[in-house]
Amino acid sequence: MIPTKIDTGHLIDTDRLDRREIVELLDRAAFWKKNPEAGHTMYQRFFAANLFFEPSTRTRISFEVAQKRLGMEVLHLDGETASTVKGESFYDTLRTLSSIGVKVAVVRHRGTGLLARMADRDPGLCLVNAGEGDGGHPTQALLDLYTIRRCFGDPGRLTVSIIGDLQHSRVARSNLWALQKFGTRVILSGPESMRDPVLEEQAEYRSIDEAIRQADVVMMLRVQLERHEEALYSGREAYHRDYGLTVERLDQMQSHAVIMHPGPVNRGVELAPELVEHPRSRIFEQMSNGVWVRMAVLERAIRGGMNG
Amino acid sequence: MIPTKIDTGHLIDTDRLDRREIVELLDRAAFWKKNPEAGHTMYQRFFAANLFFEPSTRTRISFEVAQKRLGMEVLHLDGETASTVKGESFYDTLRTLSSIGVKVAVVRHRGTGLLARMADRDPGLCLVNAGEGDGGHPTQALLDLYTIRRCFGDPGRLTVSIIGDLQHSRVARSNLWALQKFGTRVILSGPESMRDPVLEEQAEYRSIDEAIRQADVVMMLRVQLERHEEALYSGREAYHRDYGLTVERLDQMQSHAVIMHPGPVNRGVELAPELVEHPRSRIFEQMSNGVWVRMAVLERAIRGGMNG
Amino acid sequence: MIPTKIDTGHLIDTDRLDRREIVELLDRAAFWKKNPEAGHTMYQRFFAANLFFEPSTRTRISFEVAQKRLGMEVLHLDGETASTVKGESFYDTLRTLSSIGVKVAVVRHRGTGLLARMADRDPGLCLVNAGEGDGGHPTQALLDLYTIRRCFGDPGRLTVSIIGDLQHSRVARSNLWALQKFGTRVILSGPESMRDPVLEEQAEYRSIDEAIRQADVVMMLRVQLERHEEALYSGREAYHRDYGLTVERLDQMQSHAVIMHPGPVNRGVELAPELVEHPRSRIFEQMSNGVWVRMAVLERAIRGGMNG
Repeated sequence: MIPTKIDTGHLIDTDRLDRREIVELLDRAAFWKKNPEAGHTMYQRFFAANLFFEPSTRTRISFEVAQKRLGMEVLHLDGETASTVKGESFYDTLRTLSSIGVKVAVVRHRGTGLLARMADRDPGLCLVNAGEGDGGHPTQALLDLYTIRRCFGDPGRLTVSIIGDLQHSRVARSNLWALQKFGTRVILSGPESMRDPVLEEQAEYRSIDEAIRQADVVMMLRVQLERHEEALYSGREAYHRDYGLTVERLDQMQSHAVIMHPGPVNRGVELAPELVEHPRSRIFEQMSNGVWVRMAVLERAIRGGMNG
Repeated sequence: MIPTKIDTGHLIDTDRLDRREIVELLDRAAFWKKNPEAGHTMYQRFFAANLFFEPSTRTRISFEVAQKRLGMEVLHLDGETASTVKGESFYDTLRTLSSIGVKVAVVRHRGTGLLARMADRDPGLCLVNAGEGDGGHPTQALLDLYTIRRCFGDPGRLTVSIIGDLQHSRVARSNLWALQKFGTRVILSGPESMRDPVLEEQAEYRSIDEAIRQADVVMMLRVQLERHEEALYSGREAYHRDYGLTVERLDQMQSHAVIMHPGPVNRGVELAPELVEHPRSRIFEQMSNGVWVRMAVLERAIRGGMNG
Repeated sequence: MIPTKIDTGHLIDTDRLDRREIVELLDRAAFWKKNPEAGHTMYQRFFAANLFFEPSTRTRISFEVAQKRLGMEVLHLDGETASTVKGESFYDTLRTLSSIGVKVAVVRHRGTGLLARMADRDPGLCLVNAGEGDGGHPTQALLDLYTIRRCFGDPGRLTVSIIGDLQHSRVARSNLWALQKFGTRVILSGPESMRDPVLEEQAEYRSIDEAIRQADVVMMLRVQLERHEEALYSGREAYHRDYGLTVERLDQMQSHAVIMHPGPVNRGVELAPELVEHPRSRIFEQMSNGVWVRMAVLERAIRGGMNG
């Protein structure tokens, strides 16, 4: 059911990338990490537009730093100012941007599948998915994979446990698709009320303690507290006790295993507060790596696909 | 009644430009279209501020691309962040900006006549009107004129039909004033409830079908649906049937005639959806041209008037 | 009670700067005023983030101009887009920014004392206070001091009268602390209901007319009308008559004395409208000077303290 179409420049989601493309992106990210200043004059006079229709500090800022490190000019459209308030269709907005000279549009929005439909209509610029409803978040998955590779090398031999609100997590989806290309074993865990039958067709569901004991990478998902109008779980403390990474569960982890989280952390919910900056935590390293990975993704978008 | 005062640098509206000034602006726009990269280092260290007190994607972004193509530094103030919420007068805001080093302020707001009053008080920087209530939208008129000139050469021999909500259209006003300088024949059309007696002192009103048959340029206006708290017309479908450019009306156009629209289009209201990207449509070309025209306008503002 | 700890790079408030540091900052500001273009390539590829959780036109824009004159890349986070809406702690936001490569965070917010606590936890970047609740506004005090020094030379021999809403004025606090380092005589005045006992431990309270007659510098405070849900004073006209700088009170000022105001002015409240641009007013010069002072502050932040 997962499409295998290879994009040329667009980054719709990790299910559309093949393993070779992912490796090329990660290798290029490694280049940028080693040469953070090298891009400053490379893509000058290229315009990128960031369209964030949902709030996001870290993703938006991370993309902007990546764009500016590549020398690009950055335009911002957000929910307040975009002329979607005038009923303009999103396609027309993209066509407008491309008419004005924009080469890459980085988009975060709620409507799962919208970017794929837009890419099919060819709006005249490359699209980069910066988080799409409950659908996917491919640059998060790529930066996670990059971080895993830096910790352990080839992700193929590893077990990654993805723990938390599986049903509403775009991060879980994109990570699962990306990790599958490398043959990584993926374990899913989390509250019964947040399980996702589609994800479980592709990965095994285990109890929280089993998931933590078997993992090389403990990937805690953010509980999207702001999305749950009705409580799916009875309180923050209860969630932490039953499905959070507590100080006690830290001791069950394998001695070499690491903690990841896409951020922002709900301290005391998914993670004990003292674990955020624990030596085993890779959380702020993930954020650093996000810039290098997004530089690679933006470059690919400008070039219309690296192998184009 | 139209003032003939020549501004030096300010762009308040097209009625204050003479024909020679307009031609100089359009010629300079043509230069920028041919040499889009030539401005990149020309106005470095010049600060422009964009003050948008009404939402607008395309105009704001178009100005920003123009500014950045000229190498300018761009500051943003919008309705949310501007200290008008603290009751500061608009004049004091402009004086503050000029004290801080800003040379050009691009302003969109609701208050017709405000910019002219500010220019008279000399706030220490040049003002560019980016759309003023129902008053005027001079850079839109200039980019329309530029597009017309690229299609047909001298606009003097042409007939331009402006069709739609004449009463609330700043685009209609600024276009009429600009076209009059070239002796263009302007036809007005639209619903009875949206007619404007002041505009009709200066141009002839015709039925929609006559307006479309006689035009070299069919210029459809956006119905400002969001401004009409009470329906001025009974529904979108009825508007489209009676005053929209339907596929049927397309066949009544002269074989060489073109379609224009300032955007964003209400698809299915002013224009049949399939006409937005029709070979006769110049809509996305208008948007491209907006950047070149605004580069010329901004340059004129920095230089304090081209002939200064 | 005032701490004397010397920051290295952070600018928390003027009470933490010693006289020598202040003089160095003002001297460096004078350099930037004379050489406004000299910084354009000095701090290229350095990222600054502006976090404004309260609206502010002039401070935000002034910092941004200063940053761009230094060649810095500028990121914006404001109340709307920051992921504080997701419950992320402010510390984690700062750590995220530093992970992404940000070197300086300029912060305006409501929570007095927050920045000092953050600086103590060492978030990996330098913090600059751009206005903190009713607590302090150190760059305003520094630009005021710079303006005073340009008018009169050494501030030590002078009398500065700070007049208005002392209780809610961060400007009064930071100015008092800064002026004390130079031995300046500070007079406080304003409505009984707006007096501040803590400030009066450190400076003398006088009647409005005495304050105006004795001053070399008449520093009018903004009445934070928007903060007073209940009227602390019976109307704008009454305030102007009793505690404003009226045209009549102007005549009581010493012949060499100058008028200052942090802006934005409530015209007709703190100041008669005709005094805003009066020859004795330094109000727009204060704004100009703000850019040079903030360049010096940002430079110090990047260098981790000028003497570090």
